[in-house]
Amino acid sequence: MNKKEKIWICLAIISFVVLLSNGCRNKVQHSDGSGNPVAQIKDPLPSWNDTDNKKAIISFVGKITDESSPDFVRPAERIATFDNDGTLWSEQPMYFQFIFTFDRIKALAPKHPEWKVKQPFKAVLEGDITTVMNSGIAAINELVMATSADCTSEEFALVVKDWLAAARHPKTGKPYTEMVFQPMLELLTYLRDNGFKTFIISGGGVEFMRPWTEMVYGIPPEQVVGTSFKLKYEMHDGKPAIVQLPEVNFVDDNDGKPVGIYQYIGRRPIASFGNSDGDFEMLQYTKEGSGLRLGALVHHTDDKREWAYDRKSPYGRLDKALDSAQTNGWMLIDMKKDWKIIYAFEKK
Amino acid sequence: MNKKEKIWICLAIISFVVLLSNGCRNKVQHSDGSGNPVAQIKDPLPSWNDTDNKKAIISFVGKITDESSPDFVRPAERIATFDNDGTLWSEQPMYFQFIFTFDRIKALAPKHPEWKVKQPFKAVLEGDITTVMNSGIAAINELVMATSADCTSEEFALVVKDWLAAARHPKTGKPYTEMVFQPMLELLTYLRDNGFKTFIISGGGVEFMRPWTEMVYGIPPEQVVGTSFKLKYEMHDGKPAIVQLPEVNFVDDNDGKPVGIYQYIGRRPIASFGNSDGDFEMLQYTKEGSGLRLGALVHHTDDKREWAYDRKSPYGRLDKALDSAQTNGWMLIDMKKDWKIIYAFEKK
Repeated sequence: MNKKEKIWICLAIISFVVLLSNGCRNKVQHSDGSGNPVAQIKDPLPSWNDTDNKKAIISFVGKITDESSPDFVRPAERIATFDNDGTLWSEQPMYFQFIFTFDRIKALAPKHPEWKVKQPFKAVLEGDITTVMNSGIAAINELVMATSADCTSEEFALVVKDWLAAARHPKTGKPYTEMVFQPMLELLTYLRDNGFKTFIISGGGVEFMRPWTEMVYGIPPEQVVGTSFKLKYEMHDGKPAIVQLPEVNFVDDNDGKPVGIYQYIGRRPIASFGNSDGDFEMLQYTKEGSGLRLGALVHHTDDKREWAYDRKSPYGRLDKALDSAQTNGWMLIDMKKDWKIIYAFEKK
Repeated sequence: MNKKEKIWICLAIISFVVLLSNGCRNKVQHSDGSGNPVAQIKDPLPSWNDTDNKKAIISFVGKITDESSPDFVRPAERIATFDNDGTLWSEQPMYFQFIFTFDRIKALAPKHPEWKVKQPFKAVLEGDITTVMNSGIAAINELVMATSADCTSEEFALVVKDWLAAARHPKTGKPYTEMVFQPMLELLTYLRDNGFKTFIISGGGVEFMRPWTEMVYGIPPEQVVGTSFKLKYEMHDGKPAIVQLPEVNFVDDNDGKPVGIYQYIGRRPIASFGNSDGDFEMLQYTKEGSGLRLGALVHHTDDKREWAYDRKSPYGRLDKALDSAQTNGWMLIDMKKDWKIIYAFEKK
C-alpha cells in the first residue's frame, strides 16, 4: 500500500464514520416528530399481532406519506385524533377521573362538614357509588367542580399529579398512568414518526388530562381537547392566575367532538380512534372527508387481560357505533386478537 | 494510480457527497422548527436596526436556549403568543376584518333586500362607516355573523381566501396579506428556529384568520386562537359539516386573552407580543410567570411608512398599557427606530 492510497483510505474511513453518526442523529430527529417519514427498519407496532388491522394501519400510513401516491397528504394536514378513556387507557370499573373525583371529595370533606348531609356528596363519603351514579349529570358535574374549587389552574394540576403518584387501580394495583395501552402508545409514536400531529379529543375533563398526557402519551397540553368549565382571569394572592368557574363551558362528547376538533384544531383529522358511541360523530366527521381516511374503534374483547364489554356497559358503551362500523368502513380493533400485550407491565 | 487507490478515491468521494447532502437536509429540518437550536451564522433579524430592543430579544433567546444557563427553558415550554391586528399586520384605517365584513355584506345584499332599510346593514350598504362604528358591539357582531350565515366552516374559509386574493388596501393598493410586518415575520421564524411554538391570540375572528395564517405567518390553524361563534355539527347536503351559529362563543380580548391561552394551550407563554390595551392582560399573565419572560408592545410611531397612533385611536388603542409598560418591564418596540423596513414590498 503506498502513501497516497493510505491517505485515501483514511479519508474514506473518516467520511464513513461522520456519515454514520449523522445517520443516527437523523433518526433521533425523526423520532422527535420532525415530520419526515422514517425508513422502517424494524416493526413499528411490535405489540400488535400480524393481523389484517395492523396491515391496514401500516398500508394507510404508507400511502398518505408516499409523495408518488394519489393518497399523499402533506405533513401539515396529518392530524390524528384519539379519544382517551377506553381508547388510550382503561375505563373500568369506572372512568378514572371519577375515582379521582371521589378521592378528592373525601380529602376535602373535613373542610366541608355540610357534605355529610348534602347529596351527592353524602353518597360519595359513604362509598355509595350506585346513588352517585344515579344522581344525574348535573350532580356529577357538581362533584367534579368541587374538586377544583378555590384553586388556580396551576394548583389544580399539582393536585392531579399528586393523586396519580399515590393512587392505585383497585384491580391491578398499578398506578393509573401504567394502565395505558402499549399498542396504542406504539401507534401514537408510529404516527408521529410519520409526520402526524396527535391530539386527544376526550369527554374527560381537560384540566384532569393535561398535567400528565405529555409524560405518558407524548401529547402536549395544547393538543388535548376535553370537557371544560368556564375560566376566569384574576389576581390570586397578588399574582395573575386562571381559576375555574362553577359553570360548564363545553361538553366534548358525541356531536361535541367534531365541534371541539374544529374549535381547537381548525381542520378535519385524517385519522380518528375511539371506542364508544361517544366517538360516533368524530369518526363520521373524519371518515367522510375527501381522500383516504382511517377511522377505528377499540373493541374491548379481552376479559382476561383487560375487560370485555360493549353494548351494556355504563362506561364506554359501544352499541350504535358497533352496529354501523361495517357500513361506515370503520376498523374494529379486537383487543384480544389484535394485541400481543395490553399493558407495558405485562412484559416485566 | 493503481486500481485499489482508485476504489478508495471513489469511496471517499461518494461518502463526501452523501455527507454534504445530509448536511443540507439537517439544516432544512432545523428551519422547519424541529426544536433544535440552529447555529446562528447570519443575522436572524435582518430587518431590525441594531438597537437595544433587538439585542434584548437575541439575549432572551440565547439565555432560554442555553442548557448551561439558569434561565434555560426546555423546548416543550417555549410558547410564544402574538396578537394579530397591529402586531403582525396593519390595522388602519380600520381592522381588515371589518373591511372584509363590509365587502361581504355588499356582496350578499342582492339576496337580502330587507338590508336596505335595516340597520346596521343599511349604513354598510350606503358606505356610512361612522354610523356602523357607532352602532355598538352587538350590531357589529350581527354583521360579522351575517358574513358566514348558511355556509359550512370549510365553505367560509374559501370565501375568505377569495376575498384576500382580490381585495386591495385603500392606501397602499397591496393585498392585505402583504401588509404584514417583515420584522415580525423574521421574529416568528427566529423563535421557531429556536424551538418555540408560535401562537396567535387575537381579538379577531378565528374563522377569518385560520384560512391564511399558515401561508402568511407559518402558523397552522391549530395554533390560532381568536374570537369565535358557537359551532354546530350537522349534515349539510348529506355530508357531515361544521356550521357557525349566530351566538358568540368566546371573546378573545383583554382578560379573555389569558383565558383563551389557558383554554387552548394549557400553559403560560414565556414570550408575548401585542400592541394595544387589549393585550394588557396577556402581557401581564406572561411576564408575571416564574423565570425569564419577554413581554413586548409594538408601538406605531411611523406616520410615513405605516401609521402613527396610540392613545386616541379607535383601532389598536394603546393607552393604559403604554403607561404601565416601564413599570411592568414590557419592551416598547418603536417601529420608526427599531425597524429598517415595515413591509417586505419596500425592498422591491
